[in-house]
Amino acid sequence: MAARRRARRAARARPAAGRGGPGRARAGRAPAANVERRIHASDEETLRQIEATARKVHAEIGRGRRPDLALPVRALSNVSYDDGVGYLEIGRQKKVRTLSVNTVKNFAQTLRMMSLSRQLVQGNDFATKREAYYISKNWDECKFDEQIESDTVMDDIEALFSVSHVNREQLRFYPEEHSGSVSGPLVVRDRDSTGQVATIDCTNFGSGAYSVPSSVEELELETTAAFVLLIETGGMFQRLQSHRFWESANCILVDMGGVPTRAVRRFVRRLADEKELPVYCFVDCDPYGIANIYRTLKVGSGSAAHVNRFFCVPSARFLGVTPQDIVDYELPTHPLKEVDVKRARDALKNDPFFQRQPPWRKALEQLIRMGVRAEQQALAMWGLNYVIEEYLPRKLAEPGKFLP
Amino acid sequence: MAARRRARRAARARPAAGRGGPGRARAGRAPAANVERRIHASDEETLRQIEATARKVHAEIGRGRRPDLALPVRALSNVSYDDGVGYLEIGRQKKVRTLSVNTVKNFAQTLRMMSLSRQLVQGNDFATKREAYYISKNWDECKFDEQIESDTVMDDIEALFSVSHVNREQLRFYPEEHSGSVSGPLVVRDRDSTGQVATIDCTNFGSGAYSVPSSVEELELETTAAFVLLIETGGMFQRLQSHRFWESANCILVDMGGVPTRAVRRFVRRLADEKELPVYCFVDCDPYGIANIYRTLKVGSGSAAHVNRFFCVPSARFLGVTPQDIVDYELPTHPLKEVDVKRARDALKNDPFFQRQPPWRKALEQLIRMGVRAEQQALAMWGLNYVIEEYLPRKLAEPGKFLP
Repeated sequence: MAARRRARRAARARPAAGRGGPGRARAGRAPAANVERRIHASDEETLRQIEATARKVHAEIGRGRRPDLALPVRALSNVSYDDGVGYLEIGRQKKVRTLSVNTVKNFAQTLRMMSLSRQLVQGNDFATKREAYYISKNWDECKFDEQIESDTVMDDIEALFSVSHVNREQLRFYPEEHSGSVSGPLVVRDRDSTGQVATIDCTNFGSGAYSVPSSVEELELETTAAFVLLIETGGMFQRLQSHRFWESANCILVDMGGVPTRAVRRFVRRLADEKELPVYCFVDCDPYGIANIYRTLKVGSGSAAHVNRFFCVPSARFLGVTPQDIVDYELPTHPLKEVDVKRARDALKNDPFFQRQPPWRKALEQLIRMGVRAEQQALAMWGLNYVIEEYLPRKLAEPGKFLP
Repeated sequence: MAARRRARRAARARPAAGRGGPGRARAGRAPAANVERRIHASDEETLRQIEATARKVHAEIGRGRRPDLALPVRALSNVSYDDGVGYLEIGRQKKVRTLSVNTVKNFAQTLRMMSLSRQLVQGNDFATKREAYYISKNWDECKFDEQIESDTVMDDIEALFSVSHVNREQLRFYPEEHSGSVSGPLVVRDRDSTGQVATIDCTNFGSGAYSVPSSVEELELETTAAFVLLIETGGMFQRLQSHRFWESANCILVDMGGVPTRAVRRFVRRLADEKELPVYCFVDCDPYGIANIYRTLKVGSGSAAHVNRFFCVPSARFLGVTPQDIVDYELPTHPLKEVDVKRARDALKNDPFFQRQPPWRKALEQLIRMGVRAEQQALAMWGLNYVIEEYLPRKLAEPGKFLP
């Protein structure tokens, strides 16, 4: 089992190294060989994993022994970054929860939550964190008193099964938030919970867009696009969408609306892996756009390292706005606030991703030295559609120059 | 002109009284007679209004007199609520901005901003607040130093033209944010800025949805739905959408994601006015859901009273979750926080809408007395799909009982 896991991990690591690594300047199509195309458990696999875990606990009890569950430690101290892996990875530390007088309630709640997950998969339904909390109100002595308790148990279960390549959406626990708009040459096939299949042509939305669902695991994707362009603000997305930039540039546009949701990250990850599309990120030039939005998209977040494997896009590259763009395009700026400077310094000092990336260290130092930030809309100074007519085409002609 | 405006206003007031007023218990189709179907200026009218204003200024200068602009005062002190009107309405107070040495820069900026609006209408384009600020960087001495200045001028212009039934989206100033997901028996026809028409069938999104654009003025809407159901949280929207509740209930589902954006409010308003659809609101039972989300949807906000005419839905009614539902459905609750109680007391004491609505006063007092709040997901205690199978059908059988 451990050997198989290691082998899988090695297979998984290879394409990330090939794409995200500093040695790879070209940002064209990634090599397809050895790519584990879809880190994805089928419903059958998910059920098998849940049942195997339950059976193990049951068998221990049958033998008169106290059962335990070994959960990956979800803490920054158990996180590492390796170019070859390409995302902030959870380490090998485990906390072993053994059934005892003190742990009995939490142990039982964990098993009930697993049982709920099994029911959801079997019934082709899902529950949000909030809903799972309220469902527990019928669990008699197992019920949760506060949602924070049920959230923690859900996170534990997510971490537990993540080592078996089953993610939270596959356990049918869906995030509460619903956001992320998409347009461009992409066809989505989606079977809803009643079994009906919808075919969604993302070139056909006028000024509107396709709003991705909370779980994107089961979507079938077909595209003729050459790349994915992720955009920080709704206003900029609206401009590119209204002017059909996806058509002239042959790309898929994605509105992140700030830090991208799990669903958006997973959606783009699937496009990157399965369709081998390069992914470019277009955000404000400030420490938030760089160290929060882009970093989370590319390598995931430190506090949720157990899910980064599924929910980040290691092949993503930073199109702009870069600190050097502020100089080259003579952009109007705002002074960096103290919190901005602190965020940039933190990234340089504490963030394993930026530490490993000399071009990023240089760019962040340049930004701090300049003492200013620029919004992506600052390009409007040169004309409302300068971004469409000049900036993006110029940038896209040289993806090799994008920051890693 | 003033007489015509008064006549228009009276015409506008009538249907709101007929629907939103406490005398009207039935929540079926509203009477169509006398409804000003679409408070909507065509591009030609918008240009005419801008040009008439500019010509007046120009003529005054030609006569050697100092021109002025009379802008509605945008402050709570100039806001009133009348059941017959149905929304928080801006009063008759005007601030007159006369050209002088002190006002010359602001006066010139206002005219340039109007000129930008004219260009945008003529070029079939738009600008967000951020973009308008950056464009001004080319206006030499007219340029804005901070975005807050250009935002204020834009708000002034919006207020100025709102009295002539022209709203900000028609001036082609679009909001920055982009949100609001829609599904159900609705067909949207949308001509994008290149002239291509997209036809969007909102029954065909699987578990995803249609993401409405920043401006919904030009959309053509066709529907066979019986009503619109607005939902506070993405998780609940996902549940209703995945289970095709729009089909079983024959309604249009709208995900507000908290306080609805301008685009969502306008979109639903158009469905209410043009398609005469009843609008029901399904939110958490807490002072935020009631006094912020629902109140803003129904009667608009006090601080933006000059646009409430366009951006609220006076016919909306409150389906739930009501304080009485907490009792009737034995829902799990959370204690009201101090900020919740303060918000509820503020609504009772200072909000002209709640003051005029005895059922709401009673409901808010009940909530304060109970000292608890309930989330819409609390219904999951009775089963994940209890909301679909029991709660909503029961409620929808008696819309007359909805809170006003």
